[in-house]
Amino acid sequence: MVDTTGWTIDEWVDFHHKTTPDVSLEILQTLVASQKIAPEDPAWISVASSAEIEHQWKILQARSNKNELKLYGVPVAVKDNIDAKGFETTAACPSFAYTPERDSTVVKNLREEGAIIIGKTNLDQFATGLVGVRSPYGRVPNPFSAKHVSGGSSSGSGSVVARGIACLALTTDTAGSTRVPAALNNLISIKPSVGVFSCSGVVPACKSLDCVGVFALTLGDAETAFDVMAKPDTDNDEYSRPLPPNPLQSFGSKPKIAVPTHMQWFGEEENPKLYKKAIENLAATGAEIVALDFTDLLDLAKCLYEGAWVGERYAATKEFLDTNPPEETLDKTVIGIIKTATKFDAADTFKFEYKRQGILQKVRKLLKDIDVLAVPTCPLNPTMEDLEKEPVLVNSQQGTWTNFVNLADMCALALPAGFRPDGLPNGITLIGKKFTEYALFELGSRYLKKAFPSERTMGATKKLALLGDEIHPPKPDLSQSIKLAVVGAHLSGMALHWQLEKVNATLLKATTTSEDYRLYALPKNGPIAKPGLRRVSEAGSKIIVEVYSVPLERFGEFIAMVPQPLGIGSVELEDGEWVKSFICEEFGYTQKGTKDITSFGGWRAYIESAKATESSSKPF
Amino acid sequence: MVDTTGWTIDEWVDFHHKTTPDVSLEILQTLVASQKIAPEDPAWISVASSAEIEHQWKILQARSNKNELKLYGVPVAVKDNIDAKGFETTAACPSFAYTPERDSTVVKNLREEGAIIIGKTNLDQFATGLVGVRSPYGRVPNPFSAKHVSGGSSSGSGSVVARGIACLALTTDTAGSTRVPAALNNLISIKPSVGVFSCSGVVPACKSLDCVGVFALTLGDAETAFDVMAKPDTDNDEYSRPLPPNPLQSFGSKPKIAVPTHMQWFGEEENPKLYKKAIENLAATGAEIVALDFTDLLDLAKCLYEGAWVGERYAATKEFLDTNPPEETLDKTVIGIIKTATKFDAADTFKFEYKRQGILQKVRKLLKDIDVLAVPTCPLNPTMEDLEKEPVLVNSQQGTWTNFVNLADMCALALPAGFRPDGLPNGITLIGKKFTEYALFELGSRYLKKAFPSERTMGATKKLALLGDEIHPPKPDLSQSIKLAVVGAHLSGMALHWQLEKVNATLLKATTTSEDYRLYALPKNGPIAKPGLRRVSEAGSKIIVEVYSVPLERFGEFIAMVPQPLGIGSVELEDGEWVKSFICEEFGYTQKGTKDITSFGGWRAYIESAKATESSSKPF
Repeated sequence: MVDTTGWTIDEWVDFHHKTTPDVSLEILQTLVASQKIAPEDPAWISVASSAEIEHQWKILQARSNKNELKLYGVPVAVKDNIDAKGFETTAACPSFAYTPERDSTVVKNLREEGAIIIGKTNLDQFATGLVGVRSPYGRVPNPFSAKHVSGGSSSGSGSVVARGIACLALTTDTAGSTRVPAALNNLISIKPSVGVFSCSGVVPACKSLDCVGVFALTLGDAETAFDVMAKPDTDNDEYSRPLPPNPLQSFGSKPKIAVPTHMQWFGEEENPKLYKKAIENLAATGAEIVALDFTDLLDLAKCLYEGAWVGERYAATKEFLDTNPPEETLDKTVIGIIKTATKFDAADTFKFEYKRQGILQKVRKLLKDIDVLAVPTCPLNPTMEDLEKEPVLVNSQQGTWTNFVNLADMCALALPAGFRPDGLPNGITLIGKKFTEYALFELGSRYLKKAFPSERTMGATKKLALLGDEIHPPKPDLSQSIKLAVVGAHLSGMALHWQLEKVNATLLKATTTSEDYRLYALPKNGPIAKPGLRRVSEAGSKIIVEVYSVPLERFGEFIAMVPQPLGIGSVELEDGEWVKSFICEEFGYTQKGTKDITSFGGWRAYIESAKATESSSKPF
Repeated sequence: MVDTTGWTIDEWVDFHHKTTPDVSLEILQTLVASQKIAPEDPAWISVASSAEIEHQWKILQARSNKNELKLYGVPVAVKDNIDAKGFETTAACPSFAYTPERDSTVVKNLREEGAIIIGKTNLDQFATGLVGVRSPYGRVPNPFSAKHVSGGSSSGSGSVVARGIACLALTTDTAGSTRVPAALNNLISIKPSVGVFSCSGVVPACKSLDCVGVFALTLGDAETAFDVMAKPDTDNDEYSRPLPPNPLQSFGSKPKIAVPTHMQWFGEEENPKLYKKAIENLAATGAEIVALDFTDLLDLAKCLYEGAWVGERYAATKEFLDTNPPEETLDKTVIGIIKTATKFDAADTFKFEYKRQGILQKVRKLLKDIDVLAVPTCPLNPTMEDLEKEPVLVNSQQGTWTNFVNLADMCALALPAGFRPDGLPNGITLIGKKFTEYALFELGSRYLKKAFPSERTMGATKKLALLGDEIHPPKPDLSQSIKLAVVGAHLSGMALHWQLEKVNATLLKATTTSEDYRLYALPKNGPIAKPGLRRVSEAGSKIIVEVYSVPLERFGEFIAMVPQPLGIGSVELEDGEWVKSFICEEFGYTQKGTKDITSFGGWRAYIESAKATESSSKPF
């Protein structure tokens, strides 16, 4: 039997495509059959039966587009506060359990791309916690050390991905529940901007702030999962928001990354070293690292548990708690927190919202020129014993750098930062403004290459990430973009290419013009040499161009950088399509010193030839 | 002594500039001396003393830039829930009164432009009401009929502007308080998007929804007041939001205006006729009128008084009410409403917010393709007696078309709709999406020209508006715009000029190019003839152009409409400035059929000459 431990999406999909459906099914059935549920394995609250896997597989086999499915036959675990048809939803509270009639939207999205839901995972009850021990289903041990916690609230999801059982696992995140377990399990996780993943069919914690997130072993897998689930669901989720048509792809080659001026480590000595190294690796990507006073953000964080937002947790559970559920099904710490909400009335709630809005005014100014915040994902790697001693304090310390993110309407990518001498991992989190998820992935990919130049082990498996941390840019929305052919210094790798990056352009193709053009090297009037393209009715030639998709709303910013005698007009491509393109005034290529370079076929060939001539003509 | 009744801003400013400072001061002092306060005139809670006017005037005289001040010496009234230094703030509750140490931001803005604050006006206590009778300072009578109400909550402000005493009056608006009195007093009012006018120094009603607004006798005055107060104040107001750099100026020549499919008139027979006529006048401006189901918006409106938002009113007054203020200083109806908030806790508050967000998801879809909603400002012209019988029901009927606006994050312009046979006015309100205030003004100006083609009386004065309803477009933010010279069919009044309007462009100047250009009539390859501009090194000429400011973020939309052989490059203007401009590929003006039209000096002269030739060459 093949060992599927730590398989990435590509490995699963390749395997299924290369083997027979029966073998595939058997592999998946064997995988679930090998799993124990709580209390034996506290990571799982429930696991699919062989029959349930067969049922899912048969539905998948009936699909006509199997070959195109991004998650064809990929085993996915689901945090047990997210509905998946065929499983109970418990929110880690046995007396709260119900059987959902339909999938949550995110599970539906995953299944539409071919995912197989293999089980439901344990969590801090009602997703209230960052530790993973607040559950009557048991405390989830850390895969690297049984006496350490797995982190929460998505503790089970973290454990089953780190151990390479599930390829992906769904999480939720109100205060850090998707990020803290990623750090403690050596995983990648994306916590999107509020509303980018639908929360329809998710048991609310703080409904106005809740996000669904996902754990993966590799950055590429996290991005694929993001692609699959980042879909508007405004009919079902009050807080659903579509990503903008052309989401930011990159913060540029030199992003401004802020780190806190005052760190808080609560006595921890090893994690500061991992963090320091991670920031050095970020700097090595070309980023500018600046120190920032995080006071306003930390003030915002305090609103979450000290303010009326616990009222949201109460709003979500009040009706259930009014039924007087059996005490042994409740986690005392969790219920204690939720019940603090009863002291707040409507007037208090609004007063806290004013406080938040006031802090947000300051935060907007603070972050005006900052691209990304880079923080330790969590300060500590707590033990079960630490938590017994200080169930609330340690939890709250763990949320130092995560609690403010949703209140500030930001998104976050948690990444591994390596291992401590005791063999435990911790991580770093990159935090961006809303809807910058793709740019976080791009920066994350560059960071991982610097941090783990030779090899990176995934989760608690012994497998290496290999090419799994490569990412792909999002597909541009051509209805909200302009196709632009570039001819000269904007070609990839050339002197003005950064102008295209700056306006979030995407390369569509390298091609040539039709046969009706001539190309000229214009007399140099600045530091950068430029060509001029001329349309002719005879004696023309094909000229090499690259076609980019430029977001409509950024085109003005681009054209503002184009000097005379150049302009943006239209050009006919080899295949007969007309697209926007650099053009040149006649005045430009009739100037003295202009050189007809049509015979080179393109600007790059001419420049390379000119360079060669130049260097060969040097006397030394 | 001159009669200042119903003077507009221009009349006041002109007067002050033409007379001596002493005469100006005397006129202002005479004006305030002639005013009685409540109970004699329930519109005023307090009026400035002669000494206070002198104090303000002296400060103004010390200013070095008197000639540039938009409101130089213009008398302004302030609703008594807005702080103005030198006056008590009562919120129409004597026991709540306090003496503010500084001006509210809006009053500060007005004074900076030269306004003189002449007094504080009555309101429904704590701005809770749409009737103007809920005040221990007395019921404000309607200037057209003493037995009718002036409308609220900004009742006093409505009365003193309608009577031509104050030139402008500040208002607030949470549920319609700036709009309803405008309708009942034959005034213009703007209720900006939440946060566009600062609420710092304003007694909150529902702080997250409150807006400051303004009454004026003319549209031009309302727009000037808007210019003066539309300033970000994010340091002092949690909800302050800057207008975008290039706010929309126009919904275009054919805006899509929605009217409710189901009207609610509550037995009223005359106002439906005024409304019908107003919609006909809107249609006559070129607007497309469509019927829209307002159910979702009316559901949103219900949240305001039936939901937890009364908790905001309680948050604002709780501390004060806890002091057990004397009963006779409180309005029973108002306090009754506010105290309903005590039944809501934090969980309820969040549940209502979820409800609101759910409705907003539907509203966004509903209004996707709609530019403006046009509704009756208020269904009724209630009498004092009506209110005695039904103090809550009539109030709530009056808010039918106003209550939802702030909850839906929209702005509104209230305009006169003429008079009923009983001599009472009513109005129409144009409602736009957030930050479309300038476009509402532009549409409002076109509406007023159709509705009152010969003459329009202002407020309850007998004066005519004359040119007072003319408006000016907002100044473009050149740092967020591209200067574009147009040469041909985009010139004002010509066939493609609509493309500039579509992208919210502003004309900066008409000028010419430098002497280095020639102009060609290109062979016609579509319905619209186009010229090509050619830069030459000799035998050039100046060519007439118009320079527009095009918002940076809309430039892509514009260039997408530019066909080959044209493009956007750069041109040198007469004064040596280089701006973006239409350019033409050599291929274009070397085509067969091209005509050198340089001698015409510009496209318009050529087209007119061509037309003349064409018509003279017709045989009949």
